Amino acid sequence: MKVDKDIITKIISSDKRAIAKALTLVENDDEGSEKLLKELYKHTGRTSKIGITGPPGAGKSTLTNCLVKLMSDKGYKIGVIAVDPTSPFTGGALLGDRIRMQEVGLLENVFIRSMATRGSLGGLSKNIVEACEVLDASGKDFIIIETVGVGQSELDIAQTTDTTIVVLVPESGDSVQAMKAGLMEIADIFVLNKSDRQGADGVVSTIKNIIHLKPPSKDGWIIDVLKTVGSQNEGIEELFNEIIKHKDHLEKSSYLTIKRKEHLSKKIKELVNNKLEINFWDDTKIRNLNERLEDIALKNKDPYSYVEEITK
Amino acid sequence: MKVDKDIITKIISSDKRAIAKALTLVENDDEGSEKLLKELYKHTGRTSKIGITGPPGAGKSTLTNCLVKLMSDKGYKIGVIAVDPTSPFTGGALLGDRIRMQEVGLLENVFIRSMATRGSLGGLSKNIVEACEVLDASGKDFIIIETVGVGQSELDIAQTTDTTIVVLVPESGDSVQAMKAGLMEIADIFVLNKSDRQGADGVVSTIKNIIHLKPPSKDGWIIDVLKTVGSQNEGIEELFNEIIKHKDHLEKSSYLTIKRKEHLSKKIKELVNNKLEINFWDDTKIRNLNERLEDIALKNKDPYSYVEEITK
Repeated sequence: MKVDKDIITKIISSDKRAIAKALTLVENDDEGSEKLLKELYKHTGRTSKIGITGPPGAGKSTLTNCLVKLMSDKGYKIGVIAVDPTSPFTGGALLGDRIRMQEVGLLENVFIRSMATRGSLGGLSKNIVEACEVLDASGKDFIIIETVGVGQSELDIAQTTDTTIVVLVPESGDSVQAMKAGLMEIADIFVLNKSDRQGADGVVSTIKNIIHLKPPSKDGWIIDVLKTVGSQNEGIEELFNEIIKHKDHLEKSSYLTIKRKEHLSKKIKELVNNKLEINFWDDTKIRNLNERLEDIALKNKDPYSYVEEITK
Repeated sequence: MKVDKDIITKIISSDKRAIAKALTLVENDDEGSEKLLKELYKHTGRTSKIGITGPPGAGKSTLTNCLVKLMSDKGYKIGVIAVDPTSPFTGGALLGDRIRMQEVGLLENVFIRSMATRGSLGGLSKNIVEACEVLDASGKDFIIIETVGVGQSELDIAQTTDTTIVVLVPESGDSVQAMKAGLMEIADIFVLNKSDRQGADGVVSTIKNIIHLKPPSKDGWIIDVLKTVGSQNEGIEELFNEIIKHKDHLEKSSYLTIKRKEHLSKKIKELVNNKLEINFWDDTKIRNLNERLEDIALKNKDPYSYVEEITK
């Protein structure tokens, strides 16, 4: 695709088709994508980026939907990136989730995109971070990045958003399991969803106790635990207020600038590493590896010496 | 640490202290680690590598413990790597898990190590894969890699093991959530743990139905769903038999060789990428990035042009 001034202008004026085109470009790492991102960069930086994460089945999609509807009612412009670990045979998302998402996506001021996490060279976050930039440049007030599961990918996402919301449910076993999964370190806001179920209050106080054990946050923010029932649209207004509270806190302290600079530094490093890999692995190198693989598999040569040899 | 012939000999003869030393070396990416791994490489390849993964709270640690005890009783030598997303304030693992693990670790023919996933340059898998090599060279019959959570890290692990076991529980919500989390694609064996709880049979048949929808595996393996109750030591013998069945299947088909070559190729690529990064990011480059960051943050320059400039 040719990147002309036209598409840039259209993206900035929030044209849905132009945004969709740009996201496809970025997602596929197409030729024009870097040129596009270069042009868009100066229009970015005004969006609040919110990550929503937690274990599978916690109701993150439902919660995201409720939040988007509320924000939309209040007149905000919202972008959503739903990060799906792609399944080759299911296409990743559950049908029900997708249908609910699509309804919300029809709203004039809402743009929703599902993105896969797998298989891209240079790790998960590159394309997702770049998709955020497109949405950011298009003038969204909020971008919500919803990620499934707990793992390295979630930590990556937390390192690109301003506010990270961790969603748990009463029956997700011991709430201490969340600690084990490393979620305690990335949360700015905890949400106990499906909190009309048994044991909710117990879980809330356990999480609160754990938070108190944690050394206070660098930026002075105090993490709260909110209760929601996504399916009943309960607690969403309170969650939105907490998001705004965190946003104000970051802006009033100098921490938003610090946080974003850290993210930028991380992003540049990833871009560099990605470029180094692409530049290195040309056809000759890949052919060489394939030719030598048998020999290494048969233990005639060790992989470490081979790596030294080809990176010299 | 100096890598002398002595430590190599000791590792190969399964000396626990030498193994522990070597693992620390590898975990910290210490100077001598590459030299050590080079020497050890020709002694590797006889171990069966088993990955155990699934959502937090599924009882993976308990199941691993049961399995290790059973294997040990049968006279096998076992290595365990418990992959913890490190928490700076909890130390990662739950106390109870750790104590149980330690008991098993006292067995003569068992070696257990917890490893963190976070913060290492070049991604999670490098150090873990290398730790596997140390254990492999020490003559273990089985290495079990237990990972918490679902995400990119689990996919990485599945790409280093021979057999991947996915553990679910009845109350982990819809079992289809596992699909959503990408677990269906990596499982060679499904285990429904805590299967004495309500709804277990329903979940088993749902998973079986999903498996039938999936296109048959390249290597002709048919995935089964087993029921266990880890806390009661139930179903462990059956699980062990299924592991052996899968191991035999891989060995009889030529698929073990194919799989291991794919893993080796992936590993070499990661080693190269890691080396490229380390070689690139010297003090001058890091200083340059820090100096220019402000300018990029202020949108005077875009990160993409900066990356082009420094990678040229």
